[in-house]
Amino acid sequence: MAQFMDIHRGMRGITADQLSAAHQADLAIEEEEGVHFQHAWADPESGTVYCLSEAPSAEAVQRIHERAGHKADEIHPVPLST
Amino acid sequence: MAQFMDIHRGMRGITADQLSAAHQADLAIEEEEGVHFQHAWADPESGTVYCLSEAPSAEAVQRIHERAGHKADEIHPVPLST
Repeated sequence: MAQFMDIHRGMRGITADQLSAAHQADLAIEEEEGVHFQHAWADPESGTVYCLSEAPSAEAVQRIHERAGHKADEIHPVPLST
Repeated sequence: MAQFMDIHRGMRGITADQLSAAHQADLAIEEEEGVHFQHAWADPESGTVYCLSEAPSAEAVQRIHERAGHKADEIHPVPLST
């Protein structure tokens, strides 16, 4: 399993409830692709959301995000961390 | 204190040792600006590094990064998280 950071743009004005609902929508189906979404952070002002996940591939992360209704704009493997 | 996500680009080929050294350079001086760098993640292939911090402002985060020798390309407050 590898770790991935993905970025969603254009989410200006996102609320805490909307972030939570989006994260829950991912969690509800993530097992079907062997993905686990660990954290999400949002900046409502710039409309940027960052998600950290463990997954077999970037494609698996994207399939869950797409099915949950919020395709990522960028997905990067992050093999290094501190 | 607020939480911030910052992004460094152009770090292609960064190694685990280099990421660790960069993070340590931040930690060594972060208190002077009331900042705490909590995590960093790196994608050596795209050359992208993400840092999560707690800080009084984005400017404080940037001052530490600049003095440590690695100015951030983007710094976003992330008031929402899961």
